[in-house]
Amino acid sequence: MDAEAVARIRSSFAAQSMMTTLGAELVQIAKGSVYIKAPILAGSLQQQGFGHAGLTFSIGDSAAGYAALTTIPLENEVVTAEIKINLLAPAKGAYLIAKGRIIKPGRRLIVVASDVYAVTGKDEVLIAVLQGTMVPVDR
Amino acid sequence: MDAEAVARIRSSFAAQSMMTTLGAELVQIAKGSVYIKAPILAGSLQQQGFGHAGLTFSIGDSAAGYAALTTIPLENEVVTAEIKINLLAPAKGAYLIAKGRIIKPGRRLIVVASDVYAVTGKDEVLIAVLQGTMVPVDR
Amino acid sequence: MDAEAVARIRSSFAAQSMMTTLGAELVQIAKGSVYIKAPILAGSLQQQGFGHAGLTFSIGDSAAGYAALTTIPLENEVVTAEIKINLLAPAKGAYLIAKGRIIKPGRRLIVVASDVYAVTGKDEVLIAVLQGTMVPVDR
Amino acid sequence: MDAEAVARIRSSFAAQSMMTTLGAELVQIAKGSVYIKAPILAGSLQQQGFGHAGLTFSIGDSAAGYAALTTIPLENEVVTAEIKINLLAPAKGAYLIAKGRIIKPGRRLIVVASDVYAVTGKDEVLIAVLQGTMVPVDR
Repeated sequence: MDAEAVARIRSSFAAQSMMTTLGAELVQIAKGSVYIKAPILAGSLQQQGFGHAGLTFSIGDSAAGYAALTTIPLENEVVTAEIKINLLAPAKGAYLIAKGRIIKPGRRLIVVASDVYAVTGKDEVLIAVLQGTMVPVDR
Repeated sequence: MDAEAVARIRSSFAAQSMMTTLGAELVQIAKGSVYIKAPILAGSLQQQGFGHAGLTFSIGDSAAGYAALTTIPLENEVVTAEIKINLLAPAKGAYLIAKGRIIKPGRRLIVVASDVYAVTGKDEVLIAVLQGTMVPVDR
Repeated sequence: MDAEAVARIRSSFAAQSMMTTLGAELVQIAKGSVYIKAPILAGSLQQQGFGHAGLTFSIGDSAAGYAALTTIPLENEVVTAEIKINLLAPAKGAYLIAKGRIIKPGRRLIVVASDVYAVTGKDEVLIAVLQGTMVPVDR
Repeated sequence: MDAEAVARIRSSFAAQSMMTTLGAELVQIAKGSVYIKAPILAGSLQQQGFGHAGLTFSIGDSAAGYAALTTIPLENEVVTAEIKINLLAPAKGAYLIAKGRIIKPGRRLIVVASDVYAVTGKDEVLIAVLQGTMVPVDR
């Protein structure tokens, strides 16, 4: 990844106030693969006290979107056309990490996936898998 | 809807701190149909300044979940097994409203849908459709 | 619907040998809405003797695709980018009917849905719902 | 895999007349992973002459279902609750192969995935990815 592409992703991420609200941060940016980490804040819970599906979705979707962004020209953005999430286990632990990746790059459509883990110490539990489609758009 | 079932939904919703973070509120509770409304807060945006997909997802998923909850015994909760969202238009306007409904009730699986609209004055624009599966669990 | 557009759909449908294999036929073509009907042939079953999910999917997907096709210029075709099916009940009855419709037309992406019913006499049971994305392509 | 479990899968597969119609065959059965292969028959085509999405879906869904079946008690069957397919490339080549696998086993829900490839000689092209949920039921 060249520095300009990385800077573009960091700048786009910083502009997503939802990521700030959720306490999320970019922890890895590589060609076709982006990781986003988030704590389970007191304000991000569902009714049983676990992380809300909206938290898991938000970082899973964003990680997949930025993974797509690493594969397209610098003058474009991507938006999510559709994405599906299967929730596998409660979002509980020290923090969540979403690992987004490209399944199929493309000029018109980019097919992506994201795996979200709940981490406590060395223990990583897969809590959700996402599969979706990103669309390049003009900035 | 009897008063106890409505109270149960209000109490579950109040326990979801994510809904408070997003400024969301329950605006309609009927058998098989629940509406949730949320403003597009300064802290809920994506990089282009529109509402984040995570906001749209969170209220869409919750409205569908509570629609499911209106159809099962009072001693149960529901959790989302899976849900898919197609995003149709940017989340911009005075507020968003998610209209959750039951497609197929069931003892083991409840199939649900949610339509999310962006509203400005009398103008309602459909911005997302969700289709998913809820699972009843013990509280 | 003008006659040329209807003829285009009939001709495209006739070219799908899978539809012939499944015994499927076009039973309604209207702007944004196409119905496809199919018997549950002896060669279309799953292991319990009901219609195979592949049968339900095939007519549901095709009905949605042709619904999309009614909304775009005559020189284009559509292909399915993605589609999700929730199966609600066994495919058993005299025949199946898939009712495809447009959720959101578009130049680049067309969001569609399809409801599939199993019919016996006057009894129509909803057995599946599909939600997906069609993409216009050159013929 | 013990012989009885393998025999159960072979017998269930043989009872799916749709698999026979499509010319599909079981080519690998391992704990949590089942492969199904199918030619692109003259009767399995879409309007452009490629394999129909219904063919790709049918073997992808069945491979995922049998992968799930390898993880549950012998007296049960599984049915598909929901599955989503993203189509990546045209189904053209000597044959298709669907590689089904378990993402998360479970007593009530089994989350599965399937990758479908079009094969010509040594060339394997990923043409579709599926992600879904299987439900154990009594036989």
